[in-house]
Amino acid sequence: MIKKARTDHPVQEEIASRWSPYGFSAQPVSSEELCSLFEAARWAASSYNEQPWSYLVAVRDDKDEYEKALSCLSEANRQWASTAPVLGFAVAHLRFNRNGRPNRVALHDVGMASANLCLEAAARRIFIHQMAGILPERVREIYRVPPDHEVVSGLAIGYAAGPEQLADPYKQRDLAPRSRKPLSQFVFGATWASPCDWVR
Amino acid sequence: MIKKARTDHPVQEEIASRWSPYGFSAQPVSSEELCSLFEAARWAASSYNEQPWSYLVAVRDDKDEYEKALSCLSEANRQWASTAPVLGFAVAHLRFNRNGRPNRVALHDVGMASANLCLEAAARRIFIHQMAGILPERVREIYRVPPDHEVVSGLAIGYAAGPEQLADPYKQRDLAPRSRKPLSQFVFGATWASPCDWVR
Repeated sequence: MIKKARTDHPVQEEIASRWSPYGFSAQPVSSEELCSLFEAARWAASSYNEQPWSYLVAVRDDKDEYEKALSCLSEANRQWASTAPVLGFAVAHLRFNRNGRPNRVALHDVGMASANLCLEAAARRIFIHQMAGILPERVREIYRVPPDHEVVSGLAIGYAAGPEQLADPYKQRDLAPRSRKPLSQFVFGATWASPCDWVR
Repeated sequence: MIKKARTDHPVQEEIASRWSPYGFSAQPVSSEELCSLFEAARWAASSYNEQPWSYLVAVRDDKDEYEKALSCLSEANRQWASTAPVLGFAVAHLRFNRNGRPNRVALHDVGMASANLCLEAAARRIFIHQMAGILPERVREIYRVPPDHEVVSGLAIGYAAGPEQLADPYKQRDLAPRSRKPLSQFVFGATWASPCDWVR
């Protein structure tokens, strides 16, 4: 399913076409594709090139591991995410390796890596639905995530299902158009809430 | 200047070519290009579609505004960032608009918007050097950033200078190859630090 943003200004194809489906098709994601997705995350920018991101990933073919990952989602997310062929979690290292001091932008930099991942995926017609609704302490315990790391988000990865494969309420959500506030509401100039004069 | 990543797996051109220059050319960034950059940020994913990102942006043509933005960078960053034709700050709204509750992934989602911005830029041969080294409380005061918002990062935006325009130590940094840890060090399977078997 294609769900392209109606943009006010031209952007790259994969930025306009990226979206977060609730329904995934049964088609698996190949190892080659997965390597390219995480390779894209790898090359994100980060403060002091710290690369504070790690990912825990399970594919459906490995039934036990997949069930383990699924059990770490909130109950509401487990419902729909169980159609995704790949599940994962993004984890942030909250301190700098080089000196042990807190990394104020660790979550921000993990977000940058995950955005790279999502755009590489979209370019390959693979889509990712990220979830804040996870059980972070369960992930920490089951996967033995070390201290000073925060489990940030869950990721459901796969090809989008066609609308005919979807049931409500997910069908309604996947068919609804994508929407965002306009640039004038978040790109400011001289002071907060005053749009830049070049913003149209 | 081109500084393409040597990737282990194929990724999109703009993901491989994005980098963070210390030296910018004098070439300005047009309003059209700026609109497309922030349009890309606009369409990032966010928890509950909250879109917790805002940007404060100054272009060099507006001398007073540019100097104001420059004064909000750390002294070390002011040195090199003053060559960039555009400066900005990314700001995170730490609470959900819909219910006022804390947004655990606000910084993460701002990072996703900024990554979109950087990739849209790279596709246009525009590069962004993001900075954690800023004076957040000065930004808050000068721009009147409201409570419950965190000033996350600075952004220097422009076209990269050629090496002949650069002086040390920035020349060395801009000429050094880009490096990242391999996938096996951050993509894990059954448990923390055990790479997935499909990671090569």
